[in-house]
Amino acid sequence: MNAMTQTTPPRALPDVPDTAAGFHFEAWCAARLATVEQALDHWVGVDAAADCSHAAPADLVAAMRYAVLDGGKRLRPLLVLAAYEAVAGAGAGADGQEAALRAACAVELIHAYSLVHDDMPCMDNDVLRRGKPTVHVRFGEAGALLAGDALQALAFEILTPSETQVNAVTQARLCALLARAAGSAGMAGGQAIDLASVGQRLNEVELRDMHQRKTGALLQGSVVMGASCSQPSQQVQQALQAYGAAIGLAFQVVDDILDVTADSATLGKTAGKDADNDKPTYVSLMGLSASQAYARDLLAQAQAALQRSGLRNTAALAALADMVIQRAY
Amino acid sequence: MNAMTQTTPPRALPDVPDTAAGFHFEAWCAARLATVEQALDHWVGVDAAADCSHAAPADLVAAMRYAVLDGGKRLRPLLVLAAYEAVAGAGAGADGQEAALRAACAVELIHAYSLVHDDMPCMDNDVLRRGKPTVHVRFGEAGALLAGDALQALAFEILTPSETQVNAVTQARLCALLARAAGSAGMAGGQAIDLASVGQRLNEVELRDMHQRKTGALLQGSVVMGASCSQPSQQVQQALQAYGAAIGLAFQVVDDILDVTADSATLGKTAGKDADNDKPTYVSLMGLSASQAYARDLLAQAQAALQRSGLRNTAALAALADMVIQRAY
Repeated sequence: MNAMTQTTPPRALPDVPDTAAGFHFEAWCAARLATVEQALDHWVGVDAAADCSHAAPADLVAAMRYAVLDGGKRLRPLLVLAAYEAVAGAGAGADGQEAALRAACAVELIHAYSLVHDDMPCMDNDVLRRGKPTVHVRFGEAGALLAGDALQALAFEILTPSETQVNAVTQARLCALLARAAGSAGMAGGQAIDLASVGQRLNEVELRDMHQRKTGALLQGSVVMGASCSQPSQQVQQALQAYGAAIGLAFQVVDDILDVTADSATLGKTAGKDADNDKPTYVSLMGLSASQAYARDLLAQAQAALQRSGLRNTAALAALADMVIQRAY
Repeated sequence: MNAMTQTTPPRALPDVPDTAAGFHFEAWCAARLATVEQALDHWVGVDAAADCSHAAPADLVAAMRYAVLDGGKRLRPLLVLAAYEAVAGAGAGADGQEAALRAACAVELIHAYSLVHDDMPCMDNDVLRRGKPTVHVRFGEAGALLAGDALQALAFEILTPSETQVNAVTQARLCALLARAAGSAGMAGGQAIDLASVGQRLNEVELRDMHQRKTGALLQGSVVMGASCSQPSQQVQQALQAYGAAIGLAFQVVDDILDVTADSATLGKTAGKDADNDKPTYVSLMGLSASQAYARDLLAQAQAALQRSGLRNTAALAALADMVIQRAY
């Protein structure tokens, strides 16, 4: 029906690093980010636009590309790739690499669509994102609505190429994980709780539940999807799930801290909006210094989980956990 | 992560009819509709709400159920099941039946989400759907936005149960087909063209292209997904694709006819809104009687495609094509 995901762009993941030989996180990140950006640029519309019979409309593709390209830290794709490489080790096969890169881009598209919809006037009504006007400001509300909808579908298109590119078992597993991380019991459910909680007093359990869904589910899903592109043992799977849960929660705690400690220029989005919107946050619930201590505790939990995994190549995952927490300081 | 789609509700498709022994379309429809309604009722939230640790928020589930249950002709699920039964014949296995029922519900969820978003103020701004207030009128704009988003994810959750329920090859194939039918080159793309074409003069080729994506892609996708739950030959696949394309287009031609010939009470939605919105339609382009002749021609094309398929059990598909066109009269 659509040639979009049937062609393979010229790209391959860089060699999996051997931690014993020394690990340079910045070089690791730079190499993977370049691959991810190239893949996103390929999959979000360019090749489809060249295929006249099934091309996506130019306006829609423009809005989708605006939402996805040239912005964002790509934390989720990096988590996918780091988890994949940790499990696959130095013997990572081409089939797993293709699957991991597709998974990395798919989670980023889900993240991007959620931001587009979250910024809309009926939700957070935000006009600034990553230092640029939000999608609905630039393309209109209907354009933003459709671009978000199409990005969600595109995530599943990317996960389901021909079986010669990714085997069917991996495709099905990745679709299952992504759908559940994005859906009503995951991200969309967390946003619904967030929406209903404005002006409400949540206790810590309720706040944690909201965040585990709203941001935690997709971050944890990224780790588990990356691992699923190889063959993790049950011990490894459980340890990486715990790692993903800890950094997923830490990410939101840090986000709440940054909302009160950073300015809009640093954040690339409107600072202080949670307090303005009377939204419950970790800072409003437990105070700033206790929130910072909690973030550090979650970092320790993440590192302990990596130890438990027994995996050798966890340097990138460890550094990513550091990065999530350190951005608060 | 979520037990929602791991449990199987007590249901099974009725026996596949043997056309040679006589075929009763109304009885066929009634039996399948009952199964589909029961499955939708199961999968859209009820069981998830009983599972406290991963339950979707009650408000969100209520909006999703409102959007999906107790309404709609279920044309797409019936197409899925009719295509599956036509290909599988009397020897339809349990694995294929489970897959076909999941596919039937998944396409309906995609259809339902598209209506929820399409009705929103920034799109068609419609307040009436199936004789009831639209989702955003009942649950607010943010509630409608999230319910639509969650329904799209749920469609892919339903398609990806454990491998003991549906084999991985079928899961991957169904996800691939659904994502492409729903995405930027399919339904969402068609809606973007529709949006951009208000007040524009489209020619017949452009109008057909828009409709092939907007409504045709998912109707055709329903037929192809149903067939994919069994093992269609290439000849069968091509014939059913042609059948799906013809009824997909006919559906929209008839929709345009009804928009000018029926009243709101009959339609269950606001009549005459296309003309009010200055939207291009087949009726505005070619006139009423030529549109009616075109619909009949498309019906003949659909029936010819069924003949070409060489399949024996096509009575339900033939009757569904009739139903699509006859509702205009």
